[in-house]
Amino acid sequence: MVDFTDVQAAVDRIAGIVHRTPVMTSATLDRELGLRAFVKCENLQKCGAFKARGALNAVLALPEAAAARGVCTHSSGNHAAALAWAASRRGIRCVVVMPDSAPKVKVEAVRGYGAEVVFCKQTEREAVCARIQRETGAALVHPFENEQVIAGQGTVALEVIEQVPDLAAIIAPVGGGGLLSGIALVAGVLSPQTAVIGAEPAAVDDAARSLQSGVRAPRVVDPVTVADGLLTALGEPNFAILQSHHARIVTVAEDAIVAAARYFLERMKIVVEPSGATVLAALRAIAPEFRGRNVAVVPTGGNTDFRWLTG
Amino acid sequence: MVDFTDVQAAVDRIAGIVHRTPVMTSATLDRELGLRAFVKCENLQKCGAFKARGALNAVLALPEAAAARGVCTHSSGNHAAALAWAASRRGIRCVVVMPDSAPKVKVEAVRGYGAEVVFCKQTEREAVCARIQRETGAALVHPFENEQVIAGQGTVALEVIEQVPDLAAIIAPVGGGGLLSGIALVAGVLSPQTAVIGAEPAAVDDAARSLQSGVRAPRVVDPVTVADGLLTALGEPNFAILQSHHARIVTVAEDAIVAAARYFLERMKIVVEPSGATVLAALRAIAPEFRGRNVAVVPTGGNTDFRWLTG
Repeated sequence: MVDFTDVQAAVDRIAGIVHRTPVMTSATLDRELGLRAFVKCENLQKCGAFKARGALNAVLALPEAAAARGVCTHSSGNHAAALAWAASRRGIRCVVVMPDSAPKVKVEAVRGYGAEVVFCKQTEREAVCARIQRETGAALVHPFENEQVIAGQGTVALEVIEQVPDLAAIIAPVGGGGLLSGIALVAGVLSPQTAVIGAEPAAVDDAARSLQSGVRAPRVVDPVTVADGLLTALGEPNFAILQSHHARIVTVAEDAIVAAARYFLERMKIVVEPSGATVLAALRAIAPEFRGRNVAVVPTGGNTDFRWLTG
Repeated sequence: MVDFTDVQAAVDRIAGIVHRTPVMTSATLDRELGLRAFVKCENLQKCGAFKARGALNAVLALPEAAAARGVCTHSSGNHAAALAWAASRRGIRCVVVMPDSAPKVKVEAVRGYGAEVVFCKQTEREAVCARIQRETGAALVHPFENEQVIAGQGTVALEVIEQVPDLAAIIAPVGGGGLLSGIALVAGVLSPQTAVIGAEPAAVDDAARSLQSGVRAPRVVDPVTVADGLLTALGEPNFAILQSHHARIVTVAEDAIVAAARYFLERMKIVVEPSGATVLAALRAIAPEFRGRNVAVVPTGGNTDFRWLTG
């Protein structure tokens, strides 16, 4: 089982390749909330999202023989581009299985890093990926259940705990739970008094229900949310880690997500995709609990077409 | 005459109040340009623009008796909001003269910091401002000709020269020339081998013509440019400083400015207003001259309504 030492190993592997992202503050936001908010800008990460950390760690952790057979994954989002980028850095083959419906711009981003794209129906992604694994011997790098991916994402927490003293809480979005479980592993060792909080769209609230009931909830069917990076259901190891670290989930409404993305754009001058903006929506909902204290939020990505801005 | 020691004094005055803004890099941009570009993010500065530096320095440099009578200025842009902010920090009165046509959002920003707004016709701004000075004894803080403003803006150069080694050039936008002349003062002392380059819209090319002819060119009449922060003509002390430091101006076309603002937004995930994006347009135009070398660009602000994005 992945633990804190895996995150430490990940730091050594990926340091100097991914960005140590800056932490921003906003006096206006602090006044609004009555606390001190620290924005850990993973939207300014390589490939425009924190996913670069986990994907690079997974690719670099492969033994030489396995790496020579390449990697594959199924994703239509930031993980696909990050894995393609990481594979190109190591000079190995990468195949990404994407749904027929994937936006052209995302397909081009993956191809831009030199990866091959295989299209299929949304429901057949895992089967097609498994076939590619059998035929090529490629290693599957799952977007959030892979242990080295979890360890890589956890490096965000190592950094922000170094960058900000006395954190009362760290808030990160939760979809599959790769990032949030990585953060929990780190906070549990380095800063057990820091609350680990997931921000989840109310429209895809399986993580909230899973942690409440103690049983992993089934995937929400055809969820509709502006947070297109958080459609996935909580993964199995991710659920176990979040449960044992007493992570908490705050669900947020669609209009609160858009308002938060607008605040980042118009007031803080940074591009945050709606999935990442959930963290500010969640912080606004629970700010009174953290009056006068330091809270970190992790806007996770900046890859967006801005339809939420004009729509 | 303002000089390097004034910039050093400014650093001591404003440190800890303005942000030491981060420097961002982009591997994709470096590949495109064949050099190493360092983006000094003044769009992430307090009030969303570098203007906070000069305005705060000017307000804090006032002797107690003068400060008690308040400050005034004429500006419809970032300097107005920055001066209002700086005055509110010192707890003194601030009057801003704005044209009747000023966008409502900018008027509200100034009022939001507690300043009074006096409206008048665009052509009467200076006369109205002079009347307010006479009636109230307020100190005029000119947007770019004020020496403490120039010194404050120069702190950008002190920081970026500390943050990035071996700079072959620093590129900043030029309107009135407050920032560019402040940079020239610093580079001249700390890094004389660094070229000081102004980015100017071709539609408002008075600075380029002034430095070429050696005579300060008159204001361009009714210029049309997306770079709404660069409509002003080069100031008198600013011209003198740029001339004596052999600054160079690169003019850029409207479509190149919009493309640069889009690059910052879509690829680097930061909001840069068109006036600030001129620096990337200029860098793209002259990149071959700096092959393999380090060049800093200063996107100066992030206050925009995004009309250039959708238009």
